[in-house]
Amino acid sequence: VIRIALDAMGGDFAPLENLLGASAAAAHGVDVILVGDEPRLKLHMADLSIDLPVVHAPEEITMAEDPSRAIREKPNSSISVCARMVREGEAAAMVSAGSTGAALAAAAIIIGRSPGVLRPTIATIFPTPGSPTVLLDSGANPEVKPEHLVQFAIMGSVLAEVYLGMDSPRVGLLNIGEEPGKGRPLEKEAYRLLEAAPIRFIGNVEGRDLAADRMDVLVTDGFTGNVVLKATEGTAAMVTALVMEAIERLDPGEQASMKAAMGNLAERLDYESTGGAHLLGVAGVVVIAHGSSSRLAVTNALRIARDGAERGLVSKVAERIGRS
Amino acid sequence: VIRIALDAMGGDFAPLENLLGASAAAAHGVDVILVGDEPRLKLHMADLSIDLPVVHAPEEITMAEDPSRAIREKPNSSISVCARMVREGEAAAMVSAGSTGAALAAAAIIIGRSPGVLRPTIATIFPTPGSPTVLLDSGANPEVKPEHLVQFAIMGSVLAEVYLGMDSPRVGLLNIGEEPGKGRPLEKEAYRLLEAAPIRFIGNVEGRDLAADRMDVLVTDGFTGNVVLKATEGTAAMVTALVMEAIERLDPGEQASMKAAMGNLAERLDYESTGGAHLLGVAGVVVIAHGSSSRLAVTNALRIARDGAERGLVSKVAERIGRS
Repeated sequence: VIRIALDAMGGDFAPLENLLGASAAAAHGVDVILVGDEPRLKLHMADLSIDLPVVHAPEEITMAEDPSRAIREKPNSSISVCARMVREGEAAAMVSAGSTGAALAAAAIIIGRSPGVLRPTIATIFPTPGSPTVLLDSGANPEVKPEHLVQFAIMGSVLAEVYLGMDSPRVGLLNIGEEPGKGRPLEKEAYRLLEAAPIRFIGNVEGRDLAADRMDVLVTDGFTGNVVLKATEGTAAMVTALVMEAIERLDPGEQASMKAAMGNLAERLDYESTGGAHLLGVAGVVVIAHGSSSRLAVTNALRIARDGAERGLVSKVAERIGRS
Repeated sequence: VIRIALDAMGGDFAPLENLLGASAAAAHGVDVILVGDEPRLKLHMADLSIDLPVVHAPEEITMAEDPSRAIREKPNSSISVCARMVREGEAAAMVSAGSTGAALAAAAIIIGRSPGVLRPTIATIFPTPGSPTVLLDSGANPEVKPEHLVQFAIMGSVLAEVYLGMDSPRVGLLNIGEEPGKGRPLEKEAYRLLEAAPIRFIGNVEGRDLAADRMDVLVTDGFTGNVVLKATEGTAAMVTALVMEAIERLDPGEQASMKAAMGNLAERLDYESTGGAHLLGVAGVVVIAHGSSSRLAVTNALRIARDGAERGLVSKVAERIGRS
């Protein structure tokens, strides 16, 4: 049995959406264990007629706290307990929609890095129409060295193989021009190293390529990755909203036709529909869900955490990093 | 008379779109002088019945050349001649849709920086619905220091005042979180300096704020700015294309209704409609048009160049930098 620990207290809509998402995942065969303030959870669960195992974790980490310090000082916070369960093999994977900083700290301090990994990285699956793209680093490492980008490329390739079923994923380096000599010293040196790395490197790609089907894995530092991810998310939402405003100006019959023609466009463009980001390079499957995760996002995050554990994501990443 | 020099040979559709754009600008009262290969230009101009003054510039700079070297070695390239005309006062401003690197080099080497300016910067007017945003640096300086970001904030504020008619533009620092301590050492130190600078600093803003009306001026390094600009452009174009595909599935009457309801949405989202980016911090008005500029983009670029010269953009930037 592959049991997934859910940080029931993490996220803007905790614990309610977490409980409802967990319940739906359980109905789809995911073995979920809830981690959090047991009396509070039990109260909600009784109301909602949800029956799932609970591990008591009474301490709370607030957004204002320094994450590393909070993890050290609060061993009984829900995120610390989840990480300890993964480390001890009591859970095969963990999911949290709480503070990303706290999840990173818990993974680094309690679970630890996989052998040979220089820096764990957050990989987001970006919903490019046609073919999704793995973007990393999405914010764990605002400043990186060229050799970190090479490891991100390797780990991102494994994720694309394991999750997206790609054979030999194309890896691009995010840059301000396509020619090999472009960019900062970071990109110039990373380009050289990526050419020699055990991946399918296709060269530099530009910001506009993110919306095109040019590559399967896109590597950059965590500052650029985070900003680009949020800018793209904001732009897609803004354009979609303007189009919806236009639709509101049509008569009812036309509105229905246009909505039908658009289908699930908004959903396809919503990167939350992929359920969460993967923290790669640590010795356990860790899925970081969006802070504003709905029940559906929580269900998806639990499913991809289960898939990661089932498909041996951690051992495959460690094996590939070990060989590089 | 405010005369604007147009690099007639620059851009993907040179010289044809440049000539047509110049002709339309001239019809709207812009005093344009064409700079380029005179025999070739005259041939096209005769075909198109365009009658504008021409300055002969026989040399050509290719995209493969090192820009600074090319500017030094080819004093009779169209971009070099344009810059020399601005320096000598024979033109009040210049416009080029050619290589951005060559335009930067020509401006820096031939026109020179304004007194006190540490780094000239490319400012793009970003078509945020509701209220446009000045984004800088858009690619001139891939790596910057905190004091450069402060000057970008000051220069961008002047641009917002001069072009967008804003009284006290709100300046945001692009970052990976809103709290003051977020980001790289660059952002942490820049935050401190921006709080003390003679601008209206509103703090850190995130990637998703680019699509919202939260600030009027957004400062970042040229690597992040370039990537974000292109990613946002690509995303807006991609979503617009998906919506247009959906519209094609409607019956003809519904298509017409939806297109009417959308109005000029695609155009409003197209940052080329603003005509080009401003190179700020040099001792002359320099407008860098998109490489793929159509005649309309060229016309718009010539008009904003004329506006910049008329409104004293260069002296206002120099004065504000001098006071800071």
